[in-house]
Amino acid sequence: MIGFEVIETYGEARAGVLKLNGLEIETPVFMPVGTNANVKLMRPSDLESVGVNIILGNAFHLMLKPGLDVIENHGGLHPFMSWKKAILTDSGGFQIFSLAEGSKVSDEGVELRSPINGSKVFITPEISMKVQKVLKSDIAMVLDQCVPPNADREIVEEAVERTYLWALRSKKAMEGSTQAVFGIVQGGTYRDLRVKSARQITSLEFDGYAIGGLSIGEEREKTLDMTEVTLEFLPKDKPRYFMGAGSPDLIVELVERGVDMFDSVFPTRLARHGAALTWKGRINVRASKYRFDKNPLDEECDCYVCKNFTRSYIQHLLDREEVLGQMLLTYHNIRFMMNFVSKMRKFILEKRFPEFKEKILSVYEKGVRCE
Amino acid sequence: MIGFEVIETYGEARAGVLKLNGLEIETPVFMPVGTNANVKLMRPSDLESVGVNIILGNAFHLMLKPGLDVIENHGGLHPFMSWKKAILTDSGGFQIFSLAEGSKVSDEGVELRSPINGSKVFITPEISMKVQKVLKSDIAMVLDQCVPPNADREIVEEAVERTYLWALRSKKAMEGSTQAVFGIVQGGTYRDLRVKSARQITSLEFDGYAIGGLSIGEEREKTLDMTEVTLEFLPKDKPRYFMGAGSPDLIVELVERGVDMFDSVFPTRLARHGAALTWKGRINVRASKYRFDKNPLDEECDCYVCKNFTRSYIQHLLDREEVLGQMLLTYHNIRFMMNFVSKMRKFILEKRFPEFKEKILSVYEKGVRCE
Repeated sequence: MIGFEVIETYGEARAGVLKLNGLEIETPVFMPVGTNANVKLMRPSDLESVGVNIILGNAFHLMLKPGLDVIENHGGLHPFMSWKKAILTDSGGFQIFSLAEGSKVSDEGVELRSPINGSKVFITPEISMKVQKVLKSDIAMVLDQCVPPNADREIVEEAVERTYLWALRSKKAMEGSTQAVFGIVQGGTYRDLRVKSARQITSLEFDGYAIGGLSIGEEREKTLDMTEVTLEFLPKDKPRYFMGAGSPDLIVELVERGVDMFDSVFPTRLARHGAALTWKGRINVRASKYRFDKNPLDEECDCYVCKNFTRSYIQHLLDREEVLGQMLLTYHNIRFMMNFVSKMRKFILEKRFPEFKEKILSVYEKGVRCE
Repeated sequence: MIGFEVIETYGEARAGVLKLNGLEIETPVFMPVGTNANVKLMRPSDLESVGVNIILGNAFHLMLKPGLDVIENHGGLHPFMSWKKAILTDSGGFQIFSLAEGSKVSDEGVELRSPINGSKVFITPEISMKVQKVLKSDIAMVLDQCVPPNADREIVEEAVERTYLWALRSKKAMEGSTQAVFGIVQGGTYRDLRVKSARQITSLEFDGYAIGGLSIGEEREKTLDMTEVTLEFLPKDKPRYFMGAGSPDLIVELVERGVDMFDSVFPTRLARHGAALTWKGRINVRASKYRFDKNPLDEECDCYVCKNFTRSYIQHLLDREEVLGQMLLTYHNIRFMMNFVSKMRKFILEKRFPEFKEKILSVYEKGVRCE
């Protein structure tokens, strides 16, 4: 059961509430990625303590490992991983792009190579929906076809048609389910194809709409342009989800244009590479200048890590390859993302969004790091 | 400031309280190992939540990395790693054995090869004590010479003499310090040399006494024999610490003979190898029979992991090489050790120690695993 309410706007930017199976999730919302039934280096209790209300799971990976039988035996993904809050599951559409080598797409479905053992896996909209039903996610995503940013027009045209066809079949396969289902708009970087896809997908009346196939290597301007074009055709009373955006600068640009939901491995992957997100920009904790730095990762942060540990200590852990260093950075970075979206929401409510945007872009401008 | 009180005995087995800088630590006690200023995969808050009151740090490793300047800049090891309970620091004596290749021992001190970059490091009793003073551990260990279990008598004799000489110098170097200092008895597997070393070391009146140079490859019977011989000469009113014992079967044998304190990487290393300690013995969570097992790691356990996760889920994490699997096993295994020593203490207090010993040996008999 899903509900969505826009509480306040500033231009196109929206502050809302997503109601999902008894949970009230404030938007804009950031969803940490938990591909293999866990957010890397975070226990569910850690996710709760940093304020995470919804995470992303992946139908394609989970059907391969541990396999549906194991998850069905637990009664779904929530009990399997002991996560009581919401889960959105991706369908496998993104894997058509990311595992393109050796994959074959037809109208029926897609044959992919398992990233685990190289064996062939066939996915159809019906299979993806069946998997997501077993996972019992709160939000299921339709199967779509995501194409590379440089794809020829004909390829993108075909993918748009197929995405529509698959959206129809996905919707049909989910009939009678209590899970919310989101449609996905494709169209590459072609304006008219984005419009076409948005019209097609919204005609099917999903519970929410995702913008897919962007932020996968194309120029930032194209990302924003295509998002704008798409958003024009998405209903205002449904949540809008941009798939795969995690950097604060991109999220703030997308929120300005009217996006409500985000997911990315960005904060967790950065953490494993030794970087911290702060209100003064990204910092590389391995840098020698932090060797004696007794400051927390971020002076403005309220998290357990910032209350207890210095940059100097975390650098030591990273240097000795002690995984605790990555654990602490992951914890902090996710807390940062939670504070980031929550503060952004506050600025929308207070009609001061531009101030916030300016602050973020000044330290997170694309390509610019604070050191 | 240290105090020690034996509350109850059963034969030689003791239930006591170790008073250390305001903390009251019940004995027998198990100390998880935190060589590099962290217990692998455990945040300090995790250690506290599983009931850990004292951990072990390592002077030798910490002087190399991050270096004393970094820790001194924080005011000691406690604030550096944000650990509010007790720390015992090892002196580096064990490294004389474990890093024997390329090391040169003289009466002055020992030249070791840094395990980090192969450079030469010179350690003397004075240096080790200086390091431990900077670390501000609650209990400092004297520098001793640990020799291999198969060492010739002359070598062991020399090591015993040197250990005495170094204990004298260590004690002198710690004069005026508020840190507790423990002496270490060596003597290899030679009865008379154990007696000699115990007499020499106890003559110096330390705050506690450690039995060193055992459980490093010699037969179990020799371990127990040499411990018995040593314990006869240790004062009853001081804590007795067996260095490097972690398996429940060995600990229960040593407690029966009168040992109070233990440390080992055993529970944390086992966890990283995918094994869980349970009241029914050790289990290999990777075993295929647990694929659909919805039981917790240990049905009798009260920890966060056992309350929230199944063997099936943890197996999945291990299979996908998700570090969270090792994190959860580490958390559980340390909780198991805490419950293990606490239950053992209860059985001593209730004068039912043999029951407990029998139970443990039936599932943890040396070399026997439960699967």
